[in-house]
Amino acid sequence: MSFVDVPVTSPFTFENLPFGVFSTNENSKKRIGVAIGAQVLDLSVVKHLFTGPLLSERQNVFSQETLNQFMGLSRQCWLEARLTLQSLLSNDNPMLRDDSELRERAFVAQSEATMHLPALIGDYTDFYSSIYHATNVGTMFRGKDNALMENWKWLPVAYHGRASSIVVSGTAVNRPWGQVKAEDDTQPNFVPSRLMDFELEMAFFVGGPGNALGTPIPIEKTEEHIFGMVLMNDWSARDIQKWEYVPLGPFPRQKFCHHHFPVGRHNGSTPFNIDLTVEIKPAGSDHPVPICRTNFRHLYWTLKQQLAHHTSNGCNVRPGDLLGSGTLSGPTPDSFGCLLELSWKGTNAVKLGESGETRKFLKDGDEVIISGKCESPTGEIRIGFGECRGKLLPAIKRNFCATIEK
Amino acid sequence: MSFVDVPVTSPFTFENLPFGVFSTNENSKKRIGVAIGAQVLDLSVVKHLFTGPLLSERQNVFSQETLNQFMGLSRQCWLEARLTLQSLLSNDNPMLRDDSELRERAFVAQSEATMHLPALIGDYTDFYSSIYHATNVGTMFRGKDNALMENWKWLPVAYHGRASSIVVSGTAVNRPWGQVKAEDDTQPNFVPSRLMDFELEMAFFVGGPGNALGTPIPIEKTEEHIFGMVLMNDWSARDIQKWEYVPLGPFPRQKFCHHHFPVGRHNGSTPFNIDLTVEIKPAGSDHPVPICRTNFRHLYWTLKQQLAHHTSNGCNVRPGDLLGSGTLSGPTPDSFGCLLELSWKGTNAVKLGESGETRKFLKDGDEVIISGKCESPTGEIRIGFGECRGKLLPAIKRNFCATIEK
Repeated sequence: MSFVDVPVTSPFTFENLPFGVFSTNENSKKRIGVAIGAQVLDLSVVKHLFTGPLLSERQNVFSQETLNQFMGLSRQCWLEARLTLQSLLSNDNPMLRDDSELRERAFVAQSEATMHLPALIGDYTDFYSSIYHATNVGTMFRGKDNALMENWKWLPVAYHGRASSIVVSGTAVNRPWGQVKAEDDTQPNFVPSRLMDFELEMAFFVGGPGNALGTPIPIEKTEEHIFGMVLMNDWSARDIQKWEYVPLGPFPRQKFCHHHFPVGRHNGSTPFNIDLTVEIKPAGSDHPVPICRTNFRHLYWTLKQQLAHHTSNGCNVRPGDLLGSGTLSGPTPDSFGCLLELSWKGTNAVKLGESGETRKFLKDGDEVIISGKCESPTGEIRIGFGECRGKLLPAIKRNFCATIEK
Repeated sequence: MSFVDVPVTSPFTFENLPFGVFSTNENSKKRIGVAIGAQVLDLSVVKHLFTGPLLSERQNVFSQETLNQFMGLSRQCWLEARLTLQSLLSNDNPMLRDDSELRERAFVAQSEATMHLPALIGDYTDFYSSIYHATNVGTMFRGKDNALMENWKWLPVAYHGRASSIVVSGTAVNRPWGQVKAEDDTQPNFVPSRLMDFELEMAFFVGGPGNALGTPIPIEKTEEHIFGMVLMNDWSARDIQKWEYVPLGPFPRQKFCHHHFPVGRHNGSTPFNIDLTVEIKPAGSDHPVPICRTNFRHLYWTLKQQLAHHTSNGCNVRPGDLLGSGTLSGPTPDSFGCLLELSWKGTNAVKLGESGETRKFLKDGDEVIISGKCESPTGEIRIGFGECRGKLLPAIKRNFCATIEK
């Protein structure tokens, strides 16, 4: 156990110790931190205490403004860092516990910390790895008999996403504009999206030394390249997407990342048993209402399979690359991971608890809150991913038309 | 005119002065350079001579290892840099011309220079903006009556690409492995691609201060965000692509960039009149044979329209982002920009000049050489893009199977 207090409701237990990047009002420099209870341990202040055989020579990775350098070290280094952190935070170790001057400098209350993206994301890939999600969407748009494409069970289908649009949890997003064309319109109109949706996802950061272009990572080695996982909301404008994505796939979406700290841990016991919840808090309400409950273990293609496939043609991945799971739908209607499925293409209005409100798609002012946690059967060990929050703001007024004239 | 000798065959004239990043055997540090004739002017050595009103305070952008910081300055800064360079290199200016000690340090022979990617590419987007290419491919796979998708003339269709796989001209690439499934096979096989192709493209680097997420760049402002253009070969494995890309679009391709120096210039007189040639030099041959001649002016969607559309939903772009044109096919069969079109899906063998050889797709050992240039009608002014070269090497032998077992 730790000398740092961990409330029973905290996702950031002694067993968890997730990494992140933060700054404070007093010190705007971005620093690497580790969450425990309601505190952040500032690793830039305690980096000299990483005296293990591997990290003693590499303490500078903890004074960077992103986790990329640390992610780029070997898995053995990550494990050594975790052991050192557990020792430093342990009740049995006086080094930090009894040094009140150092503790004063090394701990920051999470309420005082502003979180930032933990890494410079070189490339971002989004998979499509939930068989329930792929089947539901396929059924809606191609009918039950052609729901899954022929290749779906042979490889984890994916597309490249845009790294620049990945933002940290808490960032509000405006309803985007785009071209939309109704079936019976003769031409598209440039309008704010009317069919805004969330997508419940998780993602993992690539770590370890990058593979050279042309050199695949075999599945047995993938564990050495999976640094840790985060929660993610992939905001989707269903009407813009429908018109714009033919034939080259999803283009102008917006990714909306992510929980406080990526967990610097990944062990082999896939599929992970991670309980996931999506809540919606309507404008003016104080009460988030659960709209989806599911579990990460329903994922068909594992993280290892995704990474092995991604590099199987020789594609190089780099520390800090982000690989998303795709929408994490489960088998039952209350476990579908987006409103497109929950409202079945807008044909059913979904009740928001007992509030009397319903949703087919998101309304302006809705805050979407994704949370995730693992617990041991007795509840004694908890690993929480914190929350990924984002509010949908109204479309920004335009004084120019962005439909392009030819 | 310049005091530096510019041979009549050189693409790097006094009017051109393209930027790039290079190193040498004697000095492995990456530096920013400008090409003229057979020389490179090392800007890290002459940065103190940028004494104009804007750049005198910003000379440090010329001692970076990439062009990102310089790209991130305003268009006014780029123009001032160009004027300063023309002055420094002019026959009429003794400052550099008569300082033999400084000239000795500032000039490097291009034959001694190793070129590197000019920027850290944050995001890479590939458009699909040639109407001839889109019509040809559509005709092959969907028939003449459905050749162009309904949205094609309403917006510049694009997909996100992978920044990590963009490599500098001269980098050889191995034939990739992937899943391929023949029509009458019951399951896919993991094999080296049998249908390797090039795609003739150009691309431009985004410059200027990036736009904030949520803030589109109107078409009138796009010029301030277009830094310069490069040649690009988008290697494509047609057989892997066919099976893997359904339904989310192109995924595991490989981009293969690009000519010596991006041109730090973009003026409004679109469409640009750039003559483009693709040559193939088979293994063992000393003679590259032209297989495609076309012109950039055939592009349907201009660079400005691409950028305006890209940001029209609020997507943020950053200095150093790369936007590709898509395959640059012209209207006639000899101007098609890839073998898929030149051989019409492998139905016609294309003659390689008088060599007796033919190609439907690329063979191991083929070197693909893309070049591009603009000339004034009298030939007095030339702006050359140099060459984008890459050799296709055989597939690497594998001792493991990368088809993923479920």
